[in-house]
Amino acid sequence: MNTMIRPISTPNAPAAGGHYAQAIAHQGLVYVSGQLPVEPDGTHRPDADFADQARLAIRNMLAVAQAAGSAPDRLLKVTVYIVGIENWPLFNRIYAEMLGDVRPARSVVPVPELHYGYLVEIDAIAALAD
Amino acid sequence: MNTMIRPISTPNAPAAGGHYAQAIAHQGLVYVSGQLPVEPDGTHRPDADFADQARLAIRNMLAVAQAAGSAPDRLLKVTVYIVGIENWPLFNRIYAEMLGDVRPARSVVPVPELHYGYLVEIDAIAALAD
Amino acid sequence: MNTMIRPISTPNAPAAGGHYAQAIAHQGLVYVSGQLPVEPDGTHRPDADFADQARLAIRNMLAVAQAAGSAPDRLLKVTVYIVGIENWPLFNRIYAEMLGDVRPARSVVPVPELHYGYLVEIDAIAALAD
Repeated sequence: MNTMIRPISTPNAPAAGGHYAQAIAHQGLVYVSGQLPVEPDGTHRPDADFADQARLAIRNMLAVAQAAGSAPDRLLKVTVYIVGIENWPLFNRIYAEMLGDVRPARSVVPVPELHYGYLVEIDAIAALAD
Repeated sequence: MNTMIRPISTPNAPAAGGHYAQAIAHQGLVYVSGQLPVEPDGTHRPDADFADQARLAIRNMLAVAQAAGSAPDRLLKVTVYIVGIENWPLFNRIYAEMLGDVRPARSVVPVPELHYGYLVEIDAIAALAD
Repeated sequence: MNTMIRPISTPNAPAAGGHYAQAIAHQGLVYVSGQLPVEPDGTHRPDADFADQARLAIRNMLAVAQAAGSAPDRLLKVTVYIVGIENWPLFNRIYAEMLGDVRPARSVVPVPELHYGYLVEIDAIAALAD
């Protein structure tokens, strides 16, 4: 593999559960794979409520981005897949609490279902530190 | 916030309705947030037909990209979320009319629903002018 | 159109079925449009089983990326849209077989349906060769 393409692996987020890296860093950017609300140690929490799932998925996404050398204030675009658009307001509130003054570009994409019955999944593109 | 990461804000598209910027510009690219068929002044039009919704969402996406210093012929990748794949032909026709000779990379992603009951949402990655 | 923005066209993947390019290359990256399981000659195979559809969609995505000057080991982020999360394990297995040691960032996004009744669509961002 070309050395400029750097797979990211961190114990601060759950290990990839399939044929993918947690993220790939390349040319000043990091592409974070879809993060589910799985505990960093791999414990699944399919019965957690939406708020807890949202917090955990956001935390995993941020942990992977940070492991690559990025930071919350260097997020560029976040894509959020949610089951049930009625969860949009709660998601937005939790996301705002966790990101604070940082407001990356974002799309929230309703989906009919997610892996393991989860209600939220998040991927992102972020800039690495200079 | 790092000065190289530039949030975009323009009155030519609806203000962000949640915790996000209309777009983020960084290193020659602009990441446009998911644009719904909301009027730039914030008026919602949930009862507009699919064609009108498509025109408005495309117009908003283009307005945000242009506010960042991009242009229709500098669009790189457009992602279109639609409710009802039967709307694909109509979407494609309107999109072709509005983009003319410009043919960015594109994915059309069917979704079960969208925020406020809308039928189409569009985000994009575009290059800034040199 | 700005000469730095290069539309990709290859007979090794199906021609674009709408108002888009198979891919756009720009500044060292290629943005591959959503690839369906259509034969490169344009033959539709809506009755193919999921495994065959997955192989064909992956092959098309790789063919477009390669036509732009990229390669499997230069894939950065792959987004997979599938109908039916129960197809996740089979998709992951076929994808692993075809990509081998390469593990790009990835999101698998369940959708309610896809164009022409297909079960899988794939887009990607990849790095061009140096």
